[in-house]
Amino acid sequence: MEDFKSYYAVIFTSIQKKNIEGYKEMSEKMETLAKLQQGYLGMDSVKNTVGITVSYWESLESIKNWKLQSDHLQAQLKGKSDWYNWYNVKICKVEREYGYNL
Amino acid sequence: MEDFKSYYAVIFTSIQKKNIEGYKEMSEKMETLAKLQQGYLGMDSVKNTVGITVSYWESLESIKNWKLQSDHLQAQLKGKSDWYNWYNVKICKVEREYGYNL
Repeated sequence: MEDFKSYYAVIFTSIQKKNIEGYKEMSEKMETLAKLQQGYLGMDSVKNTVGITVSYWESLESIKNWKLQSDHLQAQLKGKSDWYNWYNVKICKVEREYGYNL
Repeated sequence: MEDFKSYYAVIFTSIQKKNIEGYKEMSEKMETLAKLQQGYLGMDSVKNTVGITVSYWESLESIKNWKLQSDHLQAQLKGKSDWYNWYNVKICKVEREYGYNL
């Protein structure tokens, strides 16, 4: 257990508006961009009307850099004005992990 | 910022089998039970074939108690044998949080 290298997770929960024109293209663009960011480790995402996207990062600094990345800032503004009724962001330190694989 | 009271999140990501008979009833039962646990704060869950469920807890101890709760142990065994091809559990400390509300 002692050699577990902690990392960070950003839990993004959201409720979308009914009309989300342009959202899919932007979402794909942001996923592509995120993968290029230093410190990006991966992403899990499931969406219905409510969505949960969890992205994983090496450090708080890499999360901050992604938050301030210029194209991503534009997307965040567009998200508030056009696509989301509500969202919540939680910055978390992953302290332990286990799994099951058939 | 300094008065943010940290808490814990358990990120459960999963891939279900095709036939998940009995899953829905068990899932509802576990949600009801979790709410009765000391230290339970809430839950977000979205599912397609892939699922993400994030539950929120006051402390690591409350997470451990829930993991070892007897009905929940039965459900975990049933999950491995009948419902999941794969799952992953991450125990996280929520260090910061912000949101947007239309």
